[in-house]
Amino acid sequence: MAKRVTGPEIEKLIQLLAKVPGLGPRSARRAALHLIKKREQLMGPLSLALGEAYDKVKVCSRCGNVDTSDPCTVCTDDRRDQSVIIVVEDVADLWALERAGAMNAAYHVLGGTLSPLDGVGPDDLNIKSLIDRVSEGGIREIILAVNATVEGQATAHFITDRLSDLPVKITRLAHGVPVGGELDYLDEGTLTAALRARTTL
Amino acid sequence: MAKRVTGPEIEKLIQLLAKVPGLGPRSARRAALHLIKKREQLMGPLSLALGEAYDKVKVCSRCGNVDTSDPCTVCTDDRRDQSVIIVVEDVADLWALERAGAMNAAYHVLGGTLSPLDGVGPDDLNIKSLIDRVSEGGIREIILAVNATVEGQATAHFITDRLSDLPVKITRLAHGVPVGGELDYLDEGTLTAALRARTTL
Repeated sequence: MAKRVTGPEIEKLIQLLAKVPGLGPRSARRAALHLIKKREQLMGPLSLALGEAYDKVKVCSRCGNVDTSDPCTVCTDDRRDQSVIIVVEDVADLWALERAGAMNAAYHVLGGTLSPLDGVGPDDLNIKSLIDRVSEGGIREIILAVNATVEGQATAHFITDRLSDLPVKITRLAHGVPVGGELDYLDEGTLTAALRARTTL
Repeated sequence: MAKRVTGPEIEKLIQLLAKVPGLGPRSARRAALHLIKKREQLMGPLSLALGEAYDKVKVCSRCGNVDTSDPCTVCTDDRRDQSVIIVVEDVADLWALERAGAMNAAYHVLGGTLSPLDGVGPDDLNIKSLIDRVSEGGIREIILAVNATVEGQATAHFITDRLSDLPVKITRLAHGVPVGGELDYLDEGTLTAALRARTTL
């Protein structure tokens, strides 16, 4: 804004809201006005919820999930099959897979992918803690659910190599046509993978 | 989420973030994870800023702007021409006009438009306080910067009528082609207005 039209506290709030992913400078102003209008129903509760999350949030020392308890809700859930570990790059991937609800397993969050150009080596990821979890025994399958990118696949290869001496089955996600996807919008790599992995009806 | 994968405090935060305009359920999760990752740089400051805004925000009793002081920053700015009042529907419109920076005037926020079907009558808007401001004297122009909708124009007519006995010039925003707009995407009403209000080069 060229000139000040509101108090510094509100401008500060707009600046901070603009840093939230999904909001830009313009929508941050809109969001701030909405919060001001919904002072009791939204602004107060959101302020408290942020404060509480700020105080309590921690990273699970076992799997790398974020939670307010350590070990986290997933690691302590005895209705899950804790002998299957789904390895993901990021907490967002863990939450996405849980939304699908297809598996009832444990997780391990790597915290990224190997990327020598960016200076990310094996020691920067939670790979050692994964090897340790498997070495302790009781794990029968590791599902590598990393992104289908070059870095993701390189990371998957590295982990497979490190786990090769341990008695655990290692699998990866299937490649193929996304459900609802249209063939003529898909790249050649995906189509080739889908053809190669075709299934009998 | 089908099963709980994180603590109730974090799920509560996601639920509240999803109510912020510009964020939906999916982007609220992404926003929450980003806030958790940027705990010190963003989550803490945002929590404090929301709390402070919650405590201090008020509506200006003179013009209806939101601020942390009353009268607000705009009403107390003696570098503005306080004899010109731009009448807007909403605080968002005030802020939008200030971003344009074309005028250095005072404002009056109506808080909506007349809408008999929704039960919004003259007493539900800040119209009386506008008449009072003009009646006190010292105002030479009222610029009706309401939306170019049926409700906005009806509200403008109503205000013009109420102000007709007072010695004040009443103007409205020009209609025409938006700057950067392409003619073949514009509606007939806009094109007609732009032709009628054509200017000599």
